[in-house]
Amino acid sequence: MSFSALASVDTLQDALDPVSALVDECKIRLNEDGLSIRAVDHAYVGMVDMHLTTSGFEAYEADGGVIGVSLDRLEDVLSMGDSGDLVSLDLNEQTRKLDIHISGLSYTLALIDPDSIRQEPDIPELELPARLVLTGDDIDYGITAADLCSDRITLRADKDGEAFHMEAEGDTDDVDLTFTNDDLLAGSVDEAAESLFSLDYLKDMSRAMDTDAEVSLLLGSEMPVKLRYSRNNGHVEVVNMLAPRIKSE
Amino acid sequence: MSFSALASVDTLQDALDPVSALVDECKIRLNEDGLSIRAVDHAYVGMVDMHLTTSGFEAYEADGGVIGVSLDRLEDVLSMGDSGDLVSLDLNEQTRKLDIHISGLSYTLALIDPDSIRQEPDIPELELPARLVLTGDDIDYGITAADLCSDRITLRADKDGEAFHMEAEGDTDDVDLTFTNDDLLAGSVDEAAESLFSLDYLKDMSRAMDTDAEVSLLLGSEMPVKLRYSRNNGHVEVVNMLAPRIKSE
Amino acid sequence: MSFSALASVDTLQDALDPVSALVDECKIRLNEDGLSIRAVDHAYVGMVDMHLTTSGFEAYEADGGVIGVSLDRLEDVLSMGDSGDLVSLDLNEQTRKLDIHISGLSYTLALIDPDSIRQEPDIPELELPARLVLTGDDIDYGITAADLCSDRITLRADKDGEAFHMEAEGDTDDVDLTFTNDDLLAGSVDEAAESLFSLDYLKDMSRAMDTDAEVSLLLGSEMPVKLRYSRNNGHVEVVNMLAPRIKSE
Repeated sequence: MSFSALASVDTLQDALDPVSALVDECKIRLNEDGLSIRAVDHAYVGMVDMHLTTSGFEAYEADGGVIGVSLDRLEDVLSMGDSGDLVSLDLNEQTRKLDIHISGLSYTLALIDPDSIRQEPDIPELELPARLVLTGDDIDYGITAADLCSDRITLRADKDGEAFHMEAEGDTDDVDLTFTNDDLLAGSVDEAAESLFSLDYLKDMSRAMDTDAEVSLLLGSEMPVKLRYSRNNGHVEVVNMLAPRIKSE
Repeated sequence: MSFSALASVDTLQDALDPVSALVDECKIRLNEDGLSIRAVDHAYVGMVDMHLTTSGFEAYEADGGVIGVSLDRLEDVLSMGDSGDLVSLDLNEQTRKLDIHISGLSYTLALIDPDSIRQEPDIPELELPARLVLTGDDIDYGITAADLCSDRITLRADKDGEAFHMEAEGDTDDVDLTFTNDDLLAGSVDEAAESLFSLDYLKDMSRAMDTDAEVSLLLGSEMPVKLRYSRNNGHVEVVNMLAPRIKSE
Repeated sequence: MSFSALASVDTLQDALDPVSALVDECKIRLNEDGLSIRAVDHAYVGMVDMHLTTSGFEAYEADGGVIGVSLDRLEDVLSMGDSGDLVSLDLNEQTRKLDIHISGLSYTLALIDPDSIRQEPDIPELELPARLVLTGDDIDYGITAADLCSDRITLRADKDGEAFHMEAEGDTDDVDLTFTNDDLLAGSVDEAAESLFSLDYLKDMSRAMDTDAEVSLLLGSEMPVKLRYSRNNGHVEVVNMLAPRIKSE
């Protein structure tokens, strides 16, 4: 197994943020076409599938191995650089450690045995009848609104595609944030769709969405929701999936 | 009872801040000439009397009813808007809820039975012989200074009107902040006046005073102090009253 | 004993910061040539020797007395002024208190009996074979790097003067920050030197070093390190000394 790469600090941070929002440690697949991470939280409710393509690197060489890393630790090391600084990553096969260099700084990061890390989830193929495109900022605003009165959020798309709703029902208060077609970046609704989700998970996921990210939200009825977006000028592609909660009515 | 109003977010925030500094819930009087709130803290030490006049609204209609609200919750909803955004408030008499709209956001706020809220205090008419006008910033500075060594503050006006003092005596240290006539915006002292107050209450009250607010401070000897100021270009008028503490000498 | 001085707020803050980083109270020597403070932390591991010369004052008069002060309290009072504001300090011999004035504010600070304060340490004369000059920013960066994986830091100078290292060995990870001759402001190494130190102490000391301070670091092998720098345009001179830790190998 060999791995050697050179990239800017912010590229690596942009790639890791969506993963560290859900898990503390993960397997990184060192594929020929770039780095890939798939992870699921300990309750198997939220998933992330991230790909950082080779075009995001200054230099990249890998042969398909898998390493396990502590994301906290790796992100702490990256935070020693300024966002444009170049970082080199080199796998030392003998020591099973990752050598990280940022200008005068050398950091030797101990790896984690991949077998000790929660297995990578399969991201199921689902037929989701509604697709709505919003900005990261829109999603964040809807979450903040729902959070005013509840710890759950209903995502709802009308059949005629005229509106998308982020709604919450609290014990005494209700909130409804409505997006008309004009508010959405795009949208197509083959069938009305409505599902209920845990707000905390959606909050964690949204933290890695840039304000101006174009987020595709794929929705069904009492189905998982898929959130798909890219960042770092398209070098980083992210898919989040979140299992629905059962309505207690 | 009917109530319907349209105003900017910051106007409503400017009106509610002075009240939420003292209490968590309050009655709001929906008078024809605007919104009025009178409230006293649970220890009956600090009072506030706030009036937001109809000229502060884009549209206003009310017939003298009274509603009870949770201030935290109402302020959280308002914080979803930017300061210039328009908010509409509509009382739904059937549900006894307040419908709040800020652009795409609809929030239904459950009201509180006014009878379950602490009774509105009478703000007594008092003959207070000293009147001094300071900025909100001055008052804040004096409170911070007193806080260095004590949890109480003495407000003192000299007979000749030459000086106003904010003073504190700690166990070992003392502090005295002196305002000469030149430091004051205005002042007239018919009789020397000096009273001792709890610093925490004054701190809470001062939090809603804008830095450049012109605050009229009416002082007597071992009497309550009255603080009168306006904000939001005069649309909001506030009177605070704070009971004195007995000197333990 | 008489003492009376006038200086800007930031001059006094610049003088006290390096001391308050290590101790809560200290003796201040009111010498004819300025204020001097020597102090050691309760574990006798870190020392500071600070001198604020008379040229840093607008006015200064002292005759060699010693006072004891609570640094927290004195710094809190200074924080009431803006950095360019003038502060007057006057010792009231009868009350044994220090009268502090910042524009309209008068603060009477109770002094502490100097005999109740930990004795001033002797700063030993040491032959330290390596001298390296770095910026305060460099030292701060090295400390942050070491902190990623350990609570101890090794400072190491190579014999040929080609490099200075700030290193740390954690349970699983290592870090090495290398400064070449080009990275250093100056350096002369008569003999290779390497010592291990507690990171927390060095962190506290570095907090008072300005980003662009030129810090002379005097290093030996298993010897204390000396850090010497000035601030406030040279009016404040500081020497820190830190005892080494024994390598547990």
